[in-house]
Amino acid sequence: MAIPHQDSEAIIGRKSTEYCGVVGFKSHSSVVSLLYFGLRSLQHRGQESAGISVYNDNNKVSTYKGMGLVHEVFTKNILDSLSGNSGIGHVRYSTAGSSVISNAQPIMIHTAIGDMAIAHNGEISNAADVREYLEKAGDSFFTESDTELILKLIALEATKHGNIIDGIKRSMRYLKGSYSLAFQINDRIFAIRDPLGVRPLVLGKLDGGYGIASESVVFDTLGGQTIRDIYPGEILEITPDTAITQYRIENVQTAFCMFEYVYFARADSTMNSKNIYSVRKNLGKFLAREHPVDADIVVPVPDSGRTHALGYAEEANIPFAEGLMKNRYIDRTFIMPSEKERAQEIQLKLNPIKEVINGKRIVLIDDSIVRGNTTKKIVKLLKNAGAEKVHVRIASPPIIAPCYLGIDMKTRSQFIAAGKTVEEIREIINADSLAYLSIEGLVKAIGINKNDLCLGCLTGTYPVPIKGEKYRDQQILSNFYKL
Amino acid sequence: MAIPHQDSEAIIGRKSTEYCGVVGFKSHSSVVSLLYFGLRSLQHRGQESAGISVYNDNNKVSTYKGMGLVHEVFTKNILDSLSGNSGIGHVRYSTAGSSVISNAQPIMIHTAIGDMAIAHNGEISNAADVREYLEKAGDSFFTESDTELILKLIALEATKHGNIIDGIKRSMRYLKGSYSLAFQINDRIFAIRDPLGVRPLVLGKLDGGYGIASESVVFDTLGGQTIRDIYPGEILEITPDTAITQYRIENVQTAFCMFEYVYFARADSTMNSKNIYSVRKNLGKFLAREHPVDADIVVPVPDSGRTHALGYAEEANIPFAEGLMKNRYIDRTFIMPSEKERAQEIQLKLNPIKEVINGKRIVLIDDSIVRGNTTKKIVKLLKNAGAEKVHVRIASPPIIAPCYLGIDMKTRSQFIAAGKTVEEIREIINADSLAYLSIEGLVKAIGINKNDLCLGCLTGTYPVPIKGEKYRDQQILSNFYKL
Amino acid sequence: MAIPHQDSEAIIGRKSTEYCGVVGFKSHSSVVSLLYFGLRSLQHRGQESAGISVYNDNNKVSTYKGMGLVHEVFTKNILDSLSGNSGIGHVRYSTAGSSVISNAQPIMIHTAIGDMAIAHNGEISNAADVREYLEKAGDSFFTESDTELILKLIALEATKHGNIIDGIKRSMRYLKGSYSLAFQINDRIFAIRDPLGVRPLVLGKLDGGYGIASESVVFDTLGGQTIRDIYPGEILEITPDTAITQYRIENVQTAFCMFEYVYFARADSTMNSKNIYSVRKNLGKFLAREHPVDADIVVPVPDSGRTHALGYAEEANIPFAEGLMKNRYIDRTFIMPSEKERAQEIQLKLNPIKEVINGKRIVLIDDSIVRGNTTKKIVKLLKNAGAEKVHVRIASPPIIAPCYLGIDMKTRSQFIAAGKTVEEIREIINADSLAYLSIEGLVKAIGINKNDLCLGCLTGTYPVPIKGEKYRDQQILSNFYKL
Amino acid sequence: MAIPHQDSEAIIGRKSTEYCGVVGFKSHSSVVSLLYFGLRSLQHRGQESAGISVYNDNNKVSTYKGMGLVHEVFTKNILDSLSGNSGIGHVRYSTAGSSVISNAQPIMIHTAIGDMAIAHNGEISNAADVREYLEKAGDSFFTESDTELILKLIALEATKHGNIIDGIKRSMRYLKGSYSLAFQINDRIFAIRDPLGVRPLVLGKLDGGYGIASESVVFDTLGGQTIRDIYPGEILEITPDTAITQYRIENVQTAFCMFEYVYFARADSTMNSKNIYSVRKNLGKFLAREHPVDADIVVPVPDSGRTHALGYAEEANIPFAEGLMKNRYIDRTFIMPSEKERAQEIQLKLNPIKEVINGKRIVLIDDSIVRGNTTKKIVKLLKNAGAEKVHVRIASPPIIAPCYLGIDMKTRSQFIAAGKTVEEIREIINADSLAYLSIEGLVKAIGINKNDLCLGCLTGTYPVPIKGEKYRDQQILSNFYKL
Repeated sequence: MAIPHQDSEAIIGRKSTEYCGVVGFKSHSSVVSLLYFGLRSLQHRGQESAGISVYNDNNKVSTYKGMGLVHEVFTKNILDSLSGNSGIGHVRYSTAGSSVISNAQPIMIHTAIGDMAIAHNGEISNAADVREYLEKAGDSFFTESDTELILKLIALEATKHGNIIDGIKRSMRYLKGSYSLAFQINDRIFAIRDPLGVRPLVLGKLDGGYGIASESVVFDTLGGQTIRDIYPGEILEITPDTAITQYRIENVQTAFCMFEYVYFARADSTMNSKNIYSVRKNLGKFLAREHPVDADIVVPVPDSGRTHALGYAEEANIPFAEGLMKNRYIDRTFIMPSEKERAQEIQLKLNPIKEVINGKRIVLIDDSIVRGNTTKKIVKLLKNAGAEKVHVRIASPPIIAPCYLGIDMKTRSQFIAAGKTVEEIREIINADSLAYLSIEGLVKAIGINKNDLCLGCLTGTYPVPIKGEKYRDQQILSNFYKL
Repeated sequence: MAIPHQDSEAIIGRKSTEYCGVVGFKSHSSVVSLLYFGLRSLQHRGQESAGISVYNDNNKVSTYKGMGLVHEVFTKNILDSLSGNSGIGHVRYSTAGSSVISNAQPIMIHTAIGDMAIAHNGEISNAADVREYLEKAGDSFFTESDTELILKLIALEATKHGNIIDGIKRSMRYLKGSYSLAFQINDRIFAIRDPLGVRPLVLGKLDGGYGIASESVVFDTLGGQTIRDIYPGEILEITPDTAITQYRIENVQTAFCMFEYVYFARADSTMNSKNIYSVRKNLGKFLAREHPVDADIVVPVPDSGRTHALGYAEEANIPFAEGLMKNRYIDRTFIMPSEKERAQEIQLKLNPIKEVINGKRIVLIDDSIVRGNTTKKIVKLLKNAGAEKVHVRIASPPIIAPCYLGIDMKTRSQFIAAGKTVEEIREIINADSLAYLSIEGLVKAIGINKNDLCLGCLTGTYPVPIKGEKYRDQQILSNFYKL
Repeated sequence: MAIPHQDSEAIIGRKSTEYCGVVGFKSHSSVVSLLYFGLRSLQHRGQESAGISVYNDNNKVSTYKGMGLVHEVFTKNILDSLSGNSGIGHVRYSTAGSSVISNAQPIMIHTAIGDMAIAHNGEISNAADVREYLEKAGDSFFTESDTELILKLIALEATKHGNIIDGIKRSMRYLKGSYSLAFQINDRIFAIRDPLGVRPLVLGKLDGGYGIASESVVFDTLGGQTIRDIYPGEILEITPDTAITQYRIENVQTAFCMFEYVYFARADSTMNSKNIYSVRKNLGKFLAREHPVDADIVVPVPDSGRTHALGYAEEANIPFAEGLMKNRYIDRTFIMPSEKERAQEIQLKLNPIKEVINGKRIVLIDDSIVRGNTTKKIVKLLKNAGAEKVHVRIASPPIIAPCYLGIDMKTRSQFIAAGKTVEEIREIINADSLAYLSIEGLVKAIGINKNDLCLGCLTGTYPVPIKGEKYRDQQILSNFYKL
Repeated sequence: MAIPHQDSEAIIGRKSTEYCGVVGFKSHSSVVSLLYFGLRSLQHRGQESAGISVYNDNNKVSTYKGMGLVHEVFTKNILDSLSGNSGIGHVRYSTAGSSVISNAQPIMIHTAIGDMAIAHNGEISNAADVREYLEKAGDSFFTESDTELILKLIALEATKHGNIIDGIKRSMRYLKGSYSLAFQINDRIFAIRDPLGVRPLVLGKLDGGYGIASESVVFDTLGGQTIRDIYPGEILEITPDTAITQYRIENVQTAFCMFEYVYFARADSTMNSKNIYSVRKNLGKFLAREHPVDADIVVPVPDSGRTHALGYAEEANIPFAEGLMKNRYIDRTFIMPSEKERAQEIQLKLNPIKEVINGKRIVLIDDSIVRGNTTKKIVKLLKNAGAEKVHVRIASPPIIAPCYLGIDMKTRSQFIAAGKTVEEIREIINADSLAYLSIEGLVKAIGINKNDLCLGCLTGTYPVPIKGEKYRDQQILSNFYKL
């Protein structure tokens, strides 16, 4: 995938995804530095805003959040001002036009039964229904986010029924879509994962406490151990000494997002029991088997396509070469003094190494293609640098449909692959050949049953009902969805 | 009053009052600059935060607020980004320890019947009851402020009954205390004033529209005309072309805050039909009649006591002299490198002019005394500068009881006058003589019936029921107060 | 003077003067807080930038300076990072278009005989000659300021002759114009004042050390004693225990700036043995004698005309009244969203109190008039508020010629009085009558011999030779001026 | 080299090198965006400060510089405020403790013959002599940098002899050490490179003009062509239409820094006719030949050792694997809430992928080792992740002596290799085996004659005389060095 990559985003001058990272800890001592370092190791899941909620010495939940990277928001002074043995944290990715502090999380409210805070990764597909339900109860909203809806729903149900677990359980019946949540009421910390398990969420142990996080790298970084994935449909409460499953919705199928494996997650994470690096290398290998080509070198689009390219090169027995040099200092805050200079953008970010490229037949590997603009520019760069042939190989199938479960790919017309043959796409990007990995290849490379993956953006069939889209029914769960 | 004055606050290194300023405009053209200039002319009512809500081109209410003075929060870029033909604004004074952005106003929510925003000056005395009422309905809260309670109450009642006027009317039945509100639902702008009229609120006309504001100076500044005070108990809606009384709670007594006249309001404002400058000069004159003294010069504590001192000097026929020079650049952000240097604080702020003071018998005039620390320091400064006698005359009665209606004077023990005779106070501040204006003198100088003023901080009897305090019953209104 | 007043400057949207304030201390303990508080009490002499140089523990002079008010530049962290028992400081007023950090002072250089720093108040009139002299010696410059020229000249002469006192003495021979300097070489601190004594500079004693400052208020603020003015032409060195005149150029005449008395200096300062408050009150009294008028009240332009107005009212036996209310929060950073709104500017800053003004015959007092724009606006404000008559009385003579000795009034065409009769000016400002104090009245009110004052801006004759202007020869000094 | 790497620096919490990047352009149109993009593509050579000087419309050189990355210093507003058809730019790397704005470049001065600005990469080894020479001429200094000495020397010589070329020529005779300069006098732009050519400097052509830059990637990024290296000892002037060699010191030997090839320069640059990527791959290949080992996978220290590791893997025919995952968001501003948490630092930055590492015999490749702390930590990480063996191979010889020509490696005691055998180092870092590339291998991999390289940090013999160190005499040049 060339766009919207964490590494490639600046090329197109906007952010396109809205996934997030969440953490939560409960310990015998302060969790502030755990939250801080935990969020830093999830920084790739969101660079727009960062926030922390802790249950402090005054028996209140206090929240601090701001725009920017974790270390920009949480200066030493701010960190020193926070304390508490339980807390949650959040990093948020930007969507175009929505980069405002009011979208930052955790969101916190004061209720009759305590202070509640929530950090959310995912997307609620029946948000309009939930909002209507709450409005009928007289509720009003500070933001327009679906996360506030989740929080208000839990608050309403919990205060009505006087019990937080009941409140969460009842809320899970209403909510459709994806939600991996770190949730806090006063000093109690919960992990909540939707019954489909679309977004990841793992449990880990640390010296003196327990934690939850979007990815297992958090526990590596903190010197702890990852214990297991939160089960789809589970409400898990952590204490300093143990982790308790408070409730679990049984279901027969999951819908793990395949894109976490292809592109989103860190290569050193293990998710739903599958190591990301190994999956990516497999993706490259299966790609090589499905779409071999006679070439001199395999060149990755750095950094997103590197692991896949190593797999391809190994399987195809073609030398791997770093033919594109990336400027590490080109980032989010790219300034273009004038429109005319935008042409230099790609060259400022990626520079072909002529000594490597010149006269060579190249297999260019990327993990995926969304819009295709960047791929087209890179092919041109390589040809200008003397490449004899550029064969593009993509380590995932064509993206043809929107995502409604947590990734900001909403408009069909933006996808280069929507309604086009592979040959038509090849012509647009001006490659000598182009091939994508098949869905079957993808599924095998991940190693998870096809029925347990969400392939909505590849097939147009979704694991939740979306108006105007095809629905892959999840019978066992349907009785939960009654608002 | 020596402290907490807008001009003297820095002397004691903290903020003590929490009153605010509000504005609202509806016009045939953009109201952004009206809001901006209106708030700047109310800056004396709050320096901690500033905010503006406008109904924008997308048919949404958008709010921008920040910490600092109006011109610091609203930079040119921010102002340029705002537009709308109707909107409200707010400036907030700080209370110690609460200087956080979440307390800034306007507060805005999205409801089933539209976007609502509110700007509040005052204090709700039955906030705990209102909160409980809302919590029972399943509501939860983003802040801990009583202003959010007002907003949520109106939202709940209005959505329940499907009508904003009904929602406000019903809310006014529940709310006790002081509230002068600028309120907005989508593009409709309302002025709402509690039935006692504790805090000021005026209606004015401008070229192309109508407006509401805490003080009449707003309309002077904007080149418009002040029309009248909002009636106590009135719900007034403004349109670009007129102002409509939508509802009015009839009552027999008001409780105008006497402190607005003594100290808070700008001298060039007219409030409840009384011009502040004239009242202050009268306060000085009555003080001179009640407490004459043989002296050479009348010296004000600048700037708060100047008008009162001019009245005193004129009535007593003693020359007026500016014997204390004020450093205009000493302000809120005063840094004390070490505790030891705090002694220099007062001298950095106020410097006696020896040529004026030396050998003179001085009448030192201030508008009021709260804690007395500053008065004591000033007496010492004057004696060090060679004053032969320092006779302190205070243009209001002793403050002996807390305010529960919008001023942060909550602790009896902080008042130098609480439980002390005037002679005991004189000894503490080390003056040669000390006298306060009587309550009768105060009432006559203001020119409003004693029963229509709130004198709670002078008498300990309040116009609303406060637990543990004496209550001046307001019969006619009592049937409204049923939660 | 209506413009460029410290209090009125924002009205015209630009800064017009470039005078400055300087301090220097040498003590047995750290002088950092003395420098900080000293500069804060001189803040009225410059609000654009602030800086401090200290001789630190590493036997180096270290300098910190920044844009903004003293307390904005010197945050707690910065102050804590500075230490040293000797140092100098500077505040700078802005001139239009030159508001850049490279103009901030002190300026510091490393030389063969030590680190040198300088803080300058004044203006060198033969800067071009000095620059040429230095360039011939191979010198080059980091800034375009005359202060760097002074510093480099002293450095060159001192390193050439191996002696700092000789270096300063020789430099004083070359330099023409005004310079009141705080100068530092390593841990030695000097006060240097030009032979005409145009700008003020005083010596004071503190607990544990000695100091120099532009105005005596510095020593009041710091709890010390002002000892005397630095003599015109004196090189004074201070130690923690004494002050030593290292050299003194004898001269027969001085040229003290009359404008310091009329407007610039703080009212509580004493300068060249004359107290400013007393002088200003005298100016008002002499004005009343020269230009009486039948009127109801005397109204000052706040704050600059207040003391003069009190003198006028007392002498004329007409009641003094504060008829114009000033918004204390309108300051340097005034934003005008659009040109159209500039008309509101004056009203936002000054608001007439109708109850005071309406139907009255008013004597409006200001200390001086430069451009006249503001005076015109104020007259209009008063008439709109119902004034029957507005008689303008100015407590200094008309300004008709540029200043070349430290005030940014360089263009004759900007002065409303240049080439016009008083009657013509009256017509422009639309007053019912207008009168200025005479030069003789001014001189008598100040109480200093006319020949010892610089009246250049009133007469067009200057105490230093300026190309194209008349020169009041200072015989005794002429033999020093040989470059 | 593990430290101080651009990618690894945060691991040790400080910056250790002080090399820089320079650019200069002269064009028929504005060069501002060329300077901006040029500096961004050299960002790896300096992240502490950035600056630009341009010859503007007022016929002045104006300079803007600030602390931070290029895009942080040069916001859109700043860029829009700059214009000019000729200019120079600079990025600076930090040395510990010297991170202050006064060290930022370009440095600019006003001289009798024009405004001069300079941007310097390198280090003057006879700075004390130059300073003394200038002080004798009466000069003084704003900074303590050797760059100001170069600028002042050129200014003095040029104004003395009335000719800028003569001034530069004479200055080159005096200066010893390394200097690759972009120099500007008014609108003239020069490239100046020391006779040894220690630091790189290249000439390129662009649409509408010519440019000079530290590395050839600048011209790739800007869509231009690199023409050639500036010759050692050359004074080259560029115009919009051509480049003119104004002077050239002939010499028989150069002293190109070997470390630019090993670590500093970007892999996509070509320097002294050698492509960096190719050299690095060769370094890995020669390392494999010299020090083969029986192992399962070759793992690089990302990102600095990747290219070398690819070369090693290819030559040794062992699979290449990315066994260490790097967190891209860990950077300069790393906060450690407490000392205790510093242990997590390395894990936050680099995370081993267990699936890759576990049970494997690993060849760990890095380009060099300075202190060895990081290498030791990485070995431990790998062993904790289950590595059976960790064989460390370093693609350059041991660093045993300081650099005096532009890299902040000044203290022998900091080098892990100084005075230790390879076996002793291996014990410290706890590897199963350790081997370095030989000097002969290094020289062959670079492909430049050994006598034309500076190998001072590897051999202790330097191409310029350094007190207390061995000197490799450069006969032909010695007659230039006379101060």
